This record gives sequence, C-alpha cells and structure tokens, in this order.
Amino acid sequence: MVSTWRNSSTYRHTRYTRVMPAALADLSINARWIAPMTKRDWILEDHSLVVRNGRILAILPRAEAAATYAAGLVIDRPSHLLMPGLVNAHTQAATSLLRGVAARNPPLEQRLADPEFVRDGVLLSIAEMLASGTTCFADRSYFPDETARAVASQGMRAVIGLPVSEHRSPWAQTAGEYLTHALDVRDNYRNHPLISTAFAPHPPVAISDATFGRIATLADELDACIAIQVHASAAEIGESISRHGRRPIVRLRDLGLLTPALNALHMAQVDGADIELAQRGGISASLCPESDLGQGFGLPPAAKLAAAGLRLGLGSGAMASYYHQDLWTEMKLLTAAAADETESGFSAWDALATATCGGAAALGLDADIGTLEPGKWADLCCADLSAPATQPLYHPITQLVFCGGRDVVTDVWVAGRQLLSDGAFTRLDWPGVAARANAWTSRLTTEG
Amino acid sequence: MVSTWRNSSTYRHTRYTRVMPAALADLSINARWIAPMTKRDWILEDHSLVVRNGRILAILPRAEAAATYAAGLVIDRPSHLLMPGLVNAHTQAATSLLRGVAARNPPLEQRLADPEFVRDGVLLSIAEMLASGTTCFADRSYFPDETARAVASQGMRAVIGLPVSEHRSPWAQTAGEYLTHALDVRDNYRNHPLISTAFAPHPPVAISDATFGRIATLADELDACIAIQVHASAAEIGESISRHGRRPIVRLRDLGLLTPALNALHMAQVDGADIELAQRGGISASLCPESDLGQGFGLPPAAKLAAAGLRLGLGSGAMASYYHQDLWTEMKLLTAAAADETESGFSAWDALATATCGGAAALGLDADIGTLEPGKWADLCCADLSAPATQPLYHPITQLVFCGGRDVVTDVWVAGRQLLSDGAFTRLDWPGVAARANAWTSRLTTEG
Repeated sequence: MVSTWRNSSTYRHTRYTRVMPAALADLSINARWIAPMTKRDWILEDHSLVVRNGRILAILPRAEAAATYAAGLVIDRPSHLLMPGLVNAHTQAATSLLRGVAARNPPLEQRLADPEFVRDGVLLSIAEMLASGTTCFADRSYFPDETARAVASQGMRAVIGLPVSEHRSPWAQTAGEYLTHALDVRDNYRNHPLISTAFAPHPPVAISDATFGRIATLADELDACIAIQVHASAAEIGESISRHGRRPIVRLRDLGLLTPALNALHMAQVDGADIELAQRGGISASLCPESDLGQGFGLPPAAKLAAAGLRLGLGSGAMASYYHQDLWTEMKLLTAAAADETESGFSAWDALATATCGGAAALGLDADIGTLEPGKWADLCCADLSAPATQPLYHPITQLVFCGGRDVVTDVWVAGRQLLSDGAFTRLDWPGVAARANAWTSRLTTEG
Repeated sequence: MVSTWRNSSTYRHTRYTRVMPAALADLSINARWIAPMTKRDWILEDHSLVVRNGRILAILPRAEAAATYAAGLVIDRPSHLLMPGLVNAHTQAATSLLRGVAARNPPLEQRLADPEFVRDGVLLSIAEMLASGTTCFADRSYFPDETARAVASQGMRAVIGLPVSEHRSPWAQTAGEYLTHALDVRDNYRNHPLISTAFAPHPPVAISDATFGRIATLADELDACIAIQVHASAAEIGESISRHGRRPIVRLRDLGLLTPALNALHMAQVDGADIELAQRGGISASLCPESDLGQGFGLPPAAKLAAAGLRLGLGSGAMASYYHQDLWTEMKLLTAAAADETESGFSAWDALATATCGGAAALGLDADIGTLEPGKWADLCCADLSAPATQPLYHPITQLVFCGGRDVVTDVWVAGRQLLSDGAFTRLDWPGVAARANAWTSRLTTEG
C-alpha cells in the first residue's frame, strides 16, 4: 500500500472497489509527499495521513483514505511534503529576549532568573519555533514552571529542564532546594500529554560529586532523563582537569551518569576515548553546530558520533538562541560539518533524521513522537517545495534539507491540533507576544 | 538631515516650513529604517528614498521628502529596513538545474555546455536570487551570451564571466577562440545599463602561462576585471606546486595578474605569505564559506583578509549553487568563521557590507551600486523585521544578519524597477521558468 520514491506507481493502479462503512476521523491531510522517517530515504507519494484523538490513525494512499475514513476536516497540500515536526533537543528559550543585546551586555543574563522574563521570552521562542516547523523543544531555564505553563497554554510540546545548581538564584537557594523544586514541577506535569521533564544540572565543573550523586539516584528511581552540557569547549575540559583531575566525560562516567538516560549537550570537543566512553554508556548527544561554530569552538564530529551508534539530536543551544532557533540552518551545518570531517559525510536524510526522530530518541520520547506511525502523536510539519529555491525537484528530502529553510514551512500540528496554518498562527496571539517582547527592549537597554 | 541609530531625534523636531515647487520623481519609498551602508552602523529612521530615472535621487526624512518631491508612486514599508540589493560575487547560476542530482552523477555537468540548459538554469537562479534580495551576481559559465540575455530579459544586473580554457567545449575549441568569443560578448554588452563583463579563466593549474599572459594584456588594455578561483583547496595548491613549482598565488604574481583588476574567488586556503601577496597586489577576494565548508575545505579566514585591507565580496560559489544561492546563510557563516578565527570576529555590519558594498567593490561596480547614495542605481532590497525570528528589535542590522534570512525579503528593485513586490515576482514568469526547470529533471535523470 506504500511506495518508495521513484517507484510509486504500484498503488496508483490499484482499484478500491470494496464498499465499507467509513471509519470516523478528525483530520485527513492529503500531501504530495509524506516522509515517515521510519526507513532511510523512504518517501510516500500522494498519500493521506489520518488523525483521530490527536494521534496518527493511518497513512495510506489517497484514494484508499477517502474510501475508508470520514474525516471531519480534509486538508490538501498538493506541492508539499508532510513530515514529523522538528525536535529542538537543546534550547534556552527565554534567551530570545536577549538576542542582539546580550553579547554587548552579559550582565543582562541575570534577567533569566525572573519569572515574567522567562514567560515572555518562552512565548516569543514558541512563535519562532512553530513558524519554522518545530513542534517540540527541550528547554533549560530558571522558573521551569513558567516555561511549562507557556508551552501548555499554546498547545506545543516540550521537555522542561529542571535546573540544578550549587549557586543561589531567585528560583532556589541550595542544591537541595533546586531538587525539591524540580520534583514539584515534575509532579505537577506528570502524565501531561504535552509536557515532560528532565533534570538539567548546570555544566559538570559547577556541580559537586554529592549533588551529581543525588541526581543520578533520583533519575534512576524516577526513570527520568538528565540533560548536561558535555565538552562544549576546550576551556570547560581544562577547568575540569584542573579542578577534578579528569575530563568531564570521565568524571560523569565515574559518577555513574553515563547511561541511556543522559542527553549530552554539544559534545563538540571529543576525542576517540571520549566517544568510546559515550558509546559504552549508551548516552544520547544533542549537537549544536551553529552555537559551537559561533562561539569559536568548531563543529561537532557528527559523522563519528553517528558511527559510534549514539542517538543524535539537534539543538540551537543556549548561546545561539540569542540569535535564532532555526533547525534548518543547523541541519545544513550538520551536513557541512560531517563533510569536513569524513568523505562519506552525513546525507540529507541523516540530517533530517537527527532533527526529528533522532532528537525524539535523545529526549526519550521516541515511543510517542519523532516518526509518522499509527499510534504516535500527530506532531507534524508541512513544507511547500514549489518555491524557486527548491526547484527543480529530483528528490524531496535532498531538496528540503539542502535548499529549504524555515521559509518552506506552511503548517504545523501538535497532537493533531493545527497551530500554524499556511504560515499564520491559529492559536498564538502574535501581536500580544510581540508587544510583550518589545516592551523588554526599553527595559533592558535602560538597565544596560 | 540624517541621524544615527539611537540618536535619531534631531530631524524629528525640525520643522519644514518653506514652500517650494515639488520636484518630479518616479518613486518614493518610505521605510522604517534605511541602511545606506556608507558608514559603519549608520541607520536612518523614518526616511524616504527617492528614485528618478532608475537612480537614487535623494534620501531624506519622510516629511521633507513629501514636501520636496512629487513622486509618481509612493510605497510605505512601515516595519521594514531598506538596504542596497545583495551582490553575489561568485555564482555558476546555470548549475541550479543540477542541485540535488549532480553530486550523484558528476558527468551531468557536461550539460553546462548546452545553451538551452544555461538559459533555463540561469532563469531559475534569477528567480531564486531575486526572491532572496540579490540584485546583482557575478557569473561564470559556457555560453555567457545566454546568461547575459536571460539577465537582461529580467531586468536584473550581472557581471558576465567570459570563460577562458585550454580545453575544447561546444563554446570554443582553443584558448584563442575562447578569447575571441569573450571579446565578442564583451562588445555586444558594452555600455549596457545592467550587464558588464569580466574575464573568467578556469582555475590557474588548468591555464598556461601564455594564455594568462594574453588575458593580462587584454584586461590591461580594456580596463577589464578578471575573476579566478584562487586557493580554494589544498589539492589545488599541491597540483600547482607539482606542475608549476609554485603556489597558485605566487604564479599569478609572477604572471602579473595580482592587480586591483583581480577578483580572487574562494581564498580559503591562505597562509600569511599568501595574504601579504594579495595585499601588495591590491586584489579583491570573494569568499564562499558555505561552498568551502561543504566541500570539506574549511572556512575562509575572513577577519584576516579584512584586516589586510582586501576588498571582500561574498559568493555562493559554483559547487554550493548546486544547492542554493542564499547570501543570508553565507553571511551567518562568515561571522561564524570569523569568530572561529579571531576573538574580535566580524560584526553583523561587516557581514552585510561584504554582501553589498564589498561585493560591488570586488566586482569593480562600486561607483554605480553597493551603497545607497544619490546618483547610484536604485538597486534595492527591502526586508521586513516584524516576524518572530527578528523580534525583539534592539538593533536592526544585528537582528537582520543574525536572525534574518531570505524569508525577511519582501521587495527588490533593480535600476529603480520593482522586480519583487511583497514577495511576488512582477516581471519574471515563475510558472514558465519552473516548468522549464522541471522539464530538465526527467531529461537529466534519464541520462543519469
């Protein structure tokens, strides 16, 4: 019933003559192409994706879908590719309010410990991410309850990082209090359909062995994930060696943190021994090529990490989010970085997989999102491939990744609800979000 | 009459009470911001740019413009920044027809020596470039007369590279014949308002000393520019050493080609001695960071080349144009590359200057385009800064370069004619261009 690209004629000549009672569905999207991201380079032509109760019910040839399902809403996307929504595996969404000003005035970052700032910044980032096809992001910030509330209010999906630090902030005074608050937020969002949580300690050099021990125990008991910056810069490695006598990844191994529950952020400065440790621990890695390059740290060795079998996600990173949260640019850099590293490189499909199912796996959400399969949430991104930059069209995924960008994104659904429709927000109050974001410019520049 | 960003109140309180006869103009564009690119970080607020006979007549505060000029057409762009059109200083526009397929099938490149292919590919690239704010490009291809005709037909601007090779092609048989054809094309477009030409020999290792001597003599006699790939890859340098006993740039110096007429393309693999030679010769360099990175050659040392005083342009390059011709991505990479190289790095303004006035200077067109000044052609790009990715707005140029992209471009004028209006082509027949481009996909994949 399905067909691969360039060999798609099979179903076209199948006749659907049986008469059957129509099954009810909420939504059916007829797309020129569908990329389920379940098998390498696999593309369906002229299929429909059917949604019921927020989840994918079926993906099948258009005629068969029309004969089988009575959908409350049918949407045609005749020059579009339908794919899983992008997953941003590492953001600091509130920092969007600081882009263009933080680099000139680092103390402004203290604003990140202000609930109102976090809320307004996260809402701005949600607008930017939805408009560019991102349906899920893994965030870290003080006041994670504000982030969770903003995300849930917009019907988006997120993994809320629960900060753990040894330093005082308006969010908590001691490591113990950070953990208490973390567990509170975690409990508040238990079984929420859109929100999950992960421990998000500060970089390893800033966290004591004792605190790491408590995090490891809690994560193990609660079956929770942990997101930590690992080997983003040479400076971070040097500081760990001088303070702890070991590279950060060796220390994390010694502390029992190199497990499949760990999402190692950045992983840009890694040697062969580091990769071997990562591989043995079965950890995930979320790469942030633009952030790394922009901070002068070089590009992460994506092909080597993939060859080691790590689950790879793609993130915009904390620093880069001062500028933008655009996984399309990150995908291009990821393939470029891989070309720089090995002759084989990353393919366009590899990059798209990293930004979708790879990220979902790195966040521990692959049972629910990341690919288009019956039973998973209908978290979807639709991209129009008919503009000049993506023509002529030899292979949709190659053209999408190498020639596309956030401007090809037309529609976004999260759990079956349309949040972006032909480029327009359906739920998010953009004038209100923009006004609140811009109100901060005068407040921040006066402070600066 | 003009004001800098953050200090823009001067003209607002000026009262224009004199009554004077209105001067006639063709067009007046009222923009929220205007970036003339004549002085670092200089931004005008709430000014108008007035056009007559295809050239910029004046840039002045809005009220003054309204009082002084009776324009046939007044266009309001209330949340937009008006700037010089982008200049792509190195393209191989016809290769757009091969993006997504050439990497899998290199022999298809022979199609580049087919006039119909060149025409259809160039038209597709013109669509892509106009839609992303590019108003001028410096191209190289066989059948440059086809390129010139396509560009002139669309009212765009280009520097047509006149190919010189030692190898036979359908365009010419011998180096002598290439030069004869080059002079013919040059003569055909003499004094054309939109088309200029430059000698575009193949990479140095493929060109004999004798042919380079003839090119140098002709360029000197005719006051013509020369565009040559210089030090794009380590392989190219190694081949020159083994074949000519010198690095390419040393050989070009010995042959008298390191002059201000030379636009050195790529310049990615350069050491201190190379840069000193380039500096002494007063050459220009057109950098292609995405192409270099994508081919595994690393990023060009933009900050070092700028520090040496070279005129720097920005190009998408021949290989990268298999994928896209997006100077917005190139600008981001240029600043990232510079950050990787030095602590000071390139600023957003430096990147935007490279993509506008820098490119114009590298192509020898800076008397006519590249900045917004009375007397220059009205080659303009208008960008909307009100979308989520560019908010909040601290400084328009920072936000434009670091957070913008081709999707912020709304309008383009070349020599005062609007070719893109609120995202739509006004003159280019996109359905026709797209149909011709797509007709090649079946022809090429059958051949492949």
